[in-house]
Amino acid sequence: MGAQYCIGVDIGGTSVKLGLFTVTGALMDKWEIPTRKDEEGKWIIPDIAASIKKKMAEKGMQDTDLAGIGMGVPGPIEPDGHVAVCVNLGWKDRYPAKELSSELGGKIRAVAGNDANVAALGEMWQGGGKGHTSLVAVTLGTGVGGGVILNSRIVTGTHGLAGEIGHMHIREEEKEFCNCGGQGCLEQVASATGIVREAKRNLANTEIPSKMREFGDALTAKDVCDCAKEGDALALGTLETCCRYLGWALALVTQIIDPEIYVIGGGVSKAGQILIDLITKYFNQFTPLLKKKPEIALATLGNDAGIYGAARQVLGD
Amino acid sequence: MGAQYCIGVDIGGTSVKLGLFTVTGALMDKWEIPTRKDEEGKWIIPDIAASIKKKMAEKGMQDTDLAGIGMGVPGPIEPDGHVAVCVNLGWKDRYPAKELSSELGGKIRAVAGNDANVAALGEMWQGGGKGHTSLVAVTLGTGVGGGVILNSRIVTGTHGLAGEIGHMHIREEEKEFCNCGGQGCLEQVASATGIVREAKRNLANTEIPSKMREFGDALTAKDVCDCAKEGDALALGTLETCCRYLGWALALVTQIIDPEIYVIGGGVSKAGQILIDLITKYFNQFTPLLKKKPEIALATLGNDAGIYGAARQVLGD
Repeated sequence: MGAQYCIGVDIGGTSVKLGLFTVTGALMDKWEIPTRKDEEGKWIIPDIAASIKKKMAEKGMQDTDLAGIGMGVPGPIEPDGHVAVCVNLGWKDRYPAKELSSELGGKIRAVAGNDANVAALGEMWQGGGKGHTSLVAVTLGTGVGGGVILNSRIVTGTHGLAGEIGHMHIREEEKEFCNCGGQGCLEQVASATGIVREAKRNLANTEIPSKMREFGDALTAKDVCDCAKEGDALALGTLETCCRYLGWALALVTQIIDPEIYVIGGGVSKAGQILIDLITKYFNQFTPLLKKKPEIALATLGNDAGIYGAARQVLGD
Repeated sequence: MGAQYCIGVDIGGTSVKLGLFTVTGALMDKWEIPTRKDEEGKWIIPDIAASIKKKMAEKGMQDTDLAGIGMGVPGPIEPDGHVAVCVNLGWKDRYPAKELSSELGGKIRAVAGNDANVAALGEMWQGGGKGHTSLVAVTLGTGVGGGVILNSRIVTGTHGLAGEIGHMHIREEEKEFCNCGGQGCLEQVASATGIVREAKRNLANTEIPSKMREFGDALTAKDVCDCAKEGDALALGTLETCCRYLGWALALVTQIIDPEIYVIGGGVSKAGQILIDLITKYFNQFTPLLKKKPEIALATLGNDAGIYGAARQVLGD
């Protein structure tokens, strides 16, 4: 009988989330430790190792009970596991997986992946994309993140740029610059920040009454979505614009890799079905060649997607 | 000692090209037979089988000398090898690989793939993408075709739509419809046909002198490229527009799967370095996040890409 458990570690800027899973995907235990970023983040991996050792002792687990430990890192990670720079953690020139394995005595396998990619893998394993082997996850938060899974494996790309869906250039008339240095990125119109900006532009460009005006400068993407659901014309128009670009972007993805399913997550996705309906409407418009359409679904794991996907990395196909 | 040879079969609408290769990629022999499309193309596979038997007899080859036979089919092909409809060959509801293997006695392995995807694999094996394992090939001909290779394998997609780069929606202001039913497809501006149309629009919209005017209605994409190389401003402007959309499209591909190399083929690619330079210029503009850029190279196998890639399908990684 082989190892029955695996551990997923989602390293964030303020806390590290850890999850103990069965290899069949049941979450047995979940806990958090703070992220110690001082001294270039040199304590993060030792802290994780200590926490895992403690948990294993508590559960009476041996090294051989674990199929391995997977990590999600908030930044680019090279195919050989090298992290050149991870601004969010203070890391420079590190090999987090090798270091963790070594801290734990060298007998437990450890792997690491980018957090957005890892979250996509989590949604494939036990979330909105369960049962599928090819999936593209889109996270609509402060920015727009993405993760591409083909044949149950993360596609990282040659330069770690695969899944950078938020920086697809898609809006020719955009004059403002994106953080990436480009103009007209998907993130500029479809992130929570982008939705608010679009709404404020629309409010400034017209005298049409809108409930959105009551929120003033404090307007959030949730407010825009709520107003749209209540039938506010300007809010609905704003959301249509944002979802048109999202639907278009997913259509482009289909014409390149044609995955089985798209899974939409992140804070904005709490708007729910209205978002799926609008994205689907425009996706269909931009994919006339497709007779049978892929599923466009909501993510279901929320903040746990990271630990699920991190753990899934150590399992086979 | 295992099989030393493999055969590639590129099935076109008028002729079938066949190539005998060593498993290390040397083309030993190359021949053609006509494509008999009558009676719903029912003779195509038997004709191919007979031609292969004859060639094997001629060379004194046994079944065990062959690692397998790969085919390229001019239409969509499902993951299980099923061809629902192939308009170019008259096929309906066929399993070409199974049929070929069966015609040859059932002991030789046969596989089939879409011709554009297969050509991409050929360029990876022995062409412009040699030495790489992830590649996107773009064929600029009457239309714009594409093939996506990751981990040395063709990405076919869930609905066979992967690599349909020509139908990426990319030009918002385009009012004419594409064959696919969409508007503003890459193919409408970057195919040979698209380049000519763009040039004629530009000629009609201005009084600026241009050598392109001498060709009248018979203007070809080659004429536009030749005039651009000679410094004709309007031709160069036309080519810049077309290559801007191509560079943009490849940037989108990079933000999704980030391949090692792009290989540009098809008739238009005979324009050579000017095309690569212009595509690269715009690709760079749309990928500010990329520190190290992928190679953008010319295809080198021409019409033989199909037989190379067809044969490559039967070999391992």
